Amino acid sequence: MEIQVLKDIFESNEQMADANKKLLQDKKVYMIDMMSSPGSGKTTITERIIDTLKDEYNIAVIEGDIETTKDAEKLAKFDIPIMQIETSRFGGDCHLESSWINKCLDSFDLDVIDLVIVENVGNLVCPAEFELGDDERVVVLSVTEGEDKPAKYPLMFNSSQTLLVNKTDLLPHLDFDMDEMMGNVQRANPKLTTYHVSAKTGEGFDEFIAGLKENIRKKIGK
Amino acid sequence: MEIQVLKDIFESNEQMADANKKLLQDKKVYMIDMMSSPGSGKTTITERIIDTLKDEYNIAVIEGDIETTKDAEKLAKFDIPIMQIETSRFGGDCHLESSWINKCLDSFDLDVIDLVIVENVGNLVCPAEFELGDDERVVVLSVTEGEDKPAKYPLMFNSSQTLLVNKTDLLPHLDFDMDEMMGNVQRANPKLTTYHVSAKTGEGFDEFIAGLKENIRKKIGK
Repeated sequence: MEIQVLKDIFESNEQMADANKKLLQDKKVYMIDMMSSPGSGKTTITERIIDTLKDEYNIAVIEGDIETTKDAEKLAKFDIPIMQIETSRFGGDCHLESSWINKCLDSFDLDVIDLVIVENVGNLVCPAEFELGDDERVVVLSVTEGEDKPAKYPLMFNSSQTLLVNKTDLLPHLDFDMDEMMGNVQRANPKLTTYHVSAKTGEGFDEFIAGLKENIRKKIGK
Repeated sequence: MEIQVLKDIFESNEQMADANKKLLQDKKVYMIDMMSSPGSGKTTITERIIDTLKDEYNIAVIEGDIETTKDAEKLAKFDIPIMQIETSRFGGDCHLESSWINKCLDSFDLDVIDLVIVENVGNLVCPAEFELGDDERVVVLSVTEGEDKPAKYPLMFNSSQTLLVNKTDLLPHLDFDMDEMMGNVQRANPKLTTYHVSAKTGEGFDEFIAGLKENIRKKIGK
């Protein structure tokens, strides 16, 4: 087994994240890092973002999975640049790292691209520890996961700018206390911008998309 | 920052897992390691197991969380030994390790205990990489997480003996293809014993409990 030193992993990851940030600044590209538990709806959300914004922005996607290219296949219909990272091939199973993002960015024509959506590995813990050089971290939480998650996974909620509370269409069938969840969000990160959405029905997306467009405009001027 | 060598982490974890296994063999205690994504229902399942088996077996619980003692508090009503591990205090956020389990086992009266339920950190990736010395790995998958998870998180499903497909009460409200999911389970691990349950309604639990009791009986003779 290869011996790796954790200190080096984190340090070199941050250096490459800084390089990615500079590259994206130079090329005027906005990048979001979408993170969540497995199965909270990241890919369906990505599909909606692309579908809504594809006429205004040139979009590229980086799909992170341990194995399979299932998510990338779902997005193939959009005819946009997609890079799939299967982390099992890199020996790092539970998160994306900035060096892999850098290789993906290299393969995109960043003079043309406006928005890069990174769909991280489904994991509410480890991805939060690895900076990628993005402009915005979007954490997705499905209401089926329960009210307590912002309290139990504080780094993920602390380090993100945007929270999408997803699958609101299922609320009538759940014992879910939205006030308790929002209290936990408030305690974890009072600055988190929160949208309640259903990726399935589209409910609540207009507000999220408006916020995202405003963030993109501030950076790239369109 | 402390420098840790990954090789040592895994090696020393396996050594302590072997020690735990031997201790549990000597004391005739059955231990399950329950793992899943965040919010898939592990605590509610643990409550049902205790409620159903508390008159037949002496049960103890080890609760793993990054932060909070919320899950342990839910189980306090049962008046059984519970150890809470908050992994943020150990610098290891995303999984439980065998040395922490060893400390918990030390605190239990293993001459009296028959069954130890370990509720691992909510994470479908990293906990699978760390042996604890248990007799049975139980992976819980909520139907809200989608059909593709056994394909996308192969180690978790490969290395477990039992799968609980939970939240079946929500199936009427989801576009969930059970046949596709079971096909993915079959490809990931054809030996996985699978039960379809609803921890909320209790549906499907009799079969799972019967299987668990049979496994316990084989080891401890009662």
